[in-house]
Amino acid sequence: MPNFHAKVQVSLRTSVLDPAGEATKSAASKLGIKGISKLRIGKAIDIDIEASDLNEAKSQLELLSDRLLANPVIEDWTLDLNPASLSSSN
Amino acid sequence: MPNFHAKVQVSLRTSVLDPAGEATKSAASKLGIKGISKLRIGKAIDIDIEASDLNEAKSQLELLSDRLLANPVIEDWTLDLNPASLSSSN
Repeated sequence: MPNFHAKVQVSLRTSVLDPAGEATKSAASKLGIKGISKLRIGKAIDIDIEASDLNEAKSQLELLSDRLLANPVIEDWTLDLNPASLSSSN
Repeated sequence: MPNFHAKVQVSLRTSVLDPAGEATKSAASKLGIKGISKLRIGKAIDIDIEASDLNEAKSQLELLSDRLLANPVIEDWTLDLNPASLSSSN
């Protein structure tokens, strides 16, 4: 079966506070890095999955993102899915 | 000064174990999602920064990534930097 490589980006909804991001922004300013107006920390999940086709991989990963990777109450996610390169798909 | 939008991706080095990723992979399997051969969890940081030019923004963000966002002992990072779209750069 073909292999696919996926990247799921999970980010806090804009209406949700991000204390870790705010703390990092404040620390950046103390480090002398000026001009940052926004800094928000999300998750990036790298996944290799084997599936019969792209649609099958997509539906599996959508289920995974909805049920395990993101908390839909406070987070949004986006999925970027591609066939694995020939060298690693074997 | 122009605005720039940056995305910093922080990922664990391949030689470093990722227990959270392993737990998620195991949970995915119990949820009926088959075929996942790799699942690793990293960070994705969204940043808006104002700087005199692209090079200035890049050097500020490289400093930020090296010093605050990533732990260079166990993590690698990549920077994706673009001018903010005209509608929001103002």
